[in-house]
Amino acid sequence: MPTSLDTYFDQFRREFALPDGVIYLDGNSLGALPRLSSVRVADAVRREWGNDLIRSWNSADWINAPERVGNKIAKLIGANDGEVVACDSTSINLFKALLSALALIPHDSPRNVIVSDIDNFPTDLYIAQGLRELLRDRKLELRFVKRTEIPANISAQTAIVMLTEVDYRTGERYDMKAITALAHDNGALIIWDLAHSAGAFPVALNACDADFAVGCGYKYLNGGPGAPAFIFGATRHLDALDAMNAPAPISGWFAHAAPFAFDPVFRVVRGAKRFLVGTPPILQLASLEASLDLWLNVDLQRIREQSLALTDLFIAEVETHCGDALTLATPREHKLRGSQVSFRHVEGYAIMQNLIARGVIGDFRAPDILRFGFTPLYVTREDVVNAAKHLADILATREWDQPKYQQKHAVT
Amino acid sequence: MPTSLDTYFDQFRREFALPDGVIYLDGNSLGALPRLSSVRVADAVRREWGNDLIRSWNSADWINAPERVGNKIAKLIGANDGEVVACDSTSINLFKALLSALALIPHDSPRNVIVSDIDNFPTDLYIAQGLRELLRDRKLELRFVKRTEIPANISAQTAIVMLTEVDYRTGERYDMKAITALAHDNGALIIWDLAHSAGAFPVALNACDADFAVGCGYKYLNGGPGAPAFIFGATRHLDALDAMNAPAPISGWFAHAAPFAFDPVFRVVRGAKRFLVGTPPILQLASLEASLDLWLNVDLQRIREQSLALTDLFIAEVETHCGDALTLATPREHKLRGSQVSFRHVEGYAIMQNLIARGVIGDFRAPDILRFGFTPLYVTREDVVNAAKHLADILATREWDQPKYQQKHAVT
Repeated sequence: MPTSLDTYFDQFRREFALPDGVIYLDGNSLGALPRLSSVRVADAVRREWGNDLIRSWNSADWINAPERVGNKIAKLIGANDGEVVACDSTSINLFKALLSALALIPHDSPRNVIVSDIDNFPTDLYIAQGLRELLRDRKLELRFVKRTEIPANISAQTAIVMLTEVDYRTGERYDMKAITALAHDNGALIIWDLAHSAGAFPVALNACDADFAVGCGYKYLNGGPGAPAFIFGATRHLDALDAMNAPAPISGWFAHAAPFAFDPVFRVVRGAKRFLVGTPPILQLASLEASLDLWLNVDLQRIREQSLALTDLFIAEVETHCGDALTLATPREHKLRGSQVSFRHVEGYAIMQNLIARGVIGDFRAPDILRFGFTPLYVTREDVVNAAKHLADILATREWDQPKYQQKHAVT
Repeated sequence: MPTSLDTYFDQFRREFALPDGVIYLDGNSLGALPRLSSVRVADAVRREWGNDLIRSWNSADWINAPERVGNKIAKLIGANDGEVVACDSTSINLFKALLSALALIPHDSPRNVIVSDIDNFPTDLYIAQGLRELLRDRKLELRFVKRTEIPANISAQTAIVMLTEVDYRTGERYDMKAITALAHDNGALIIWDLAHSAGAFPVALNACDADFAVGCGYKYLNGGPGAPAFIFGATRHLDALDAMNAPAPISGWFAHAAPFAFDPVFRVVRGAKRFLVGTPPILQLASLEASLDLWLNVDLQRIREQSLALTDLFIAEVETHCGDALTLATPREHKLRGSQVSFRHVEGYAIMQNLIARGVIGDFRAPDILRFGFTPLYVTREDVVNAAKHLADILATREWDQPKYQQKHAVT
């Protein structure tokens, strides 16, 4: 029996071009294709590029796409106009966010520790490791610890706390407000990675007093493969960076106050555009923007309600039909849950190949995690029930002894 | 009377979707749309993303796109397989090239000067200015001088010479081989920006013994607006960086030796993949690759011959029909010329608006430069003659007193 939420989301599911015979539970890795994105990308290619050519920098307002798209993302993550730009990759944006946070900390400050979760998505940890090497004179110390040890490791030595709100393997969610307050109480800045948050549930960056944030355009935001990422700076910090005339983190011409004056001397632009570097990827921005235009019609509270309903249902169905063959890795408590459900099984890899061969697309994360993302815009209760049935079938017959699909890589 | 070169290029012109009534002389800023790019991008959107979804990382080989596309670019710029990757923007790639070159120079070396041309494209100068601030302990000194003063400024203090082969305003071309040799004779490394070279004429990076290079995907390579840029490292330097276990310049997960092992410790990959950072922009790469597949059928020597024929013709036609109203800013000597022709006029801005209103699309660069790019793949001798006629008409009637088109920005 469909709930009123199911009915509400029917209108959105129709807006996605999903293949027949597929139950897609991997929107946390690569969001599905909004029908409008096909249309908009084709228009950007044929009309804007092919026909209008160079004139589209003005006539199609290509020039302002990073800010325009950023402002649309801002509405989904509790940020203000002018605090977010869409550009580059999440990794590069984290590099810029770290440099921007460091610019706010005096060079001779005794605060030199960057605290993060050892189970954070690795690229976040890698970027910090690279920066430590690059900025030798800052003598940065990295303290990567288990989730439970994060609070005890935030201290007067902490320069920056850097966390991904939702764990990419387990789907466990941090309390953004509490951890941000703890960082601030200790005089530290915090950078949130919203890779598995933006579009997964309402994010409230400013209500939580977050300092900087980055996130991904191609997961829940459905921006397409390799979509531009985003970066957020709280207005108070953007103003402070402006006031101290801090250089742009990577000082390309799109971060210049007057890029078309072609002045040989770099002079940083005010506001979030300081995060820009080079010429924006117009076709990918067109794709992302089409999806955001759909997103702006979505009630984010209902996304959260339906996400919890779907993840609860999946846990219940799997536990009912699969017995204790699988171990739940995702918290049962709602406030600790993102929009995915993960189960552990020693044969997880092979089981997932068989699920994919049956058209139930989730993914596998070493060593033993079966990961399922629930995206209310295009995943229904029926999908959830059927996915659990397929999983139970595979487990009952040990179908994984004959794996049917070879997944070599999977990009989160 | 068409030459044999005109006939040769007819086959390529048919592969571009150019609008009726337009003479497009701005391919040095944004290359025209190859018909195949429309098809490939639509396929990447609908089939690879929409239908195959996350599986396309394997089935469509998205995962290797930066190297695969890089190897195709390598063939156009005199580089070897494995020396080039396509990724990020030219500005970000220059940042990485500078960091990679600096990694090869001992920290305590007395060499601390980066030499460049004060008329270099500004983002190159900006990136170097930003790096000087970022790497305070390297005590970098920037010496930006006039083109004629470059040789005298290369000395035993020079760490890096950083030049754009073809001047974006005048189209004047450096002698890559001679300047590279001069840098090496002085013990310095050189980074070439090929923004106005790749696809404009045959580039011979390895024959010139170049150290690092970067370049743009959306100009002569016709990769589309905001196409991924590229970065080249000579094998000897990639090997040396590997041997010293130098960190990646921006250490994101795509520069990890085993990105899908999700190890929290960064371990750099071997070879040019060290220049990668985050998830690649698949749709833009599809567009760029379609154009490169066309490029791989083009005889680059004929590109150069026809480019010189077209630029010679344009200079002759303009000088015949416009008298001395315009001053040629581009060298007459072939070996000093890229694939563009620039003229100076105090009313250059307004004149260009009127040309654009007549369908002759070039661009303007402050303070007084009318810039025309000649791309043999889709510009004909007839286009050149007609463009010169329009220009002569505008000058004869002072049509610019009534400018018809407002060009607010133009992205080189």
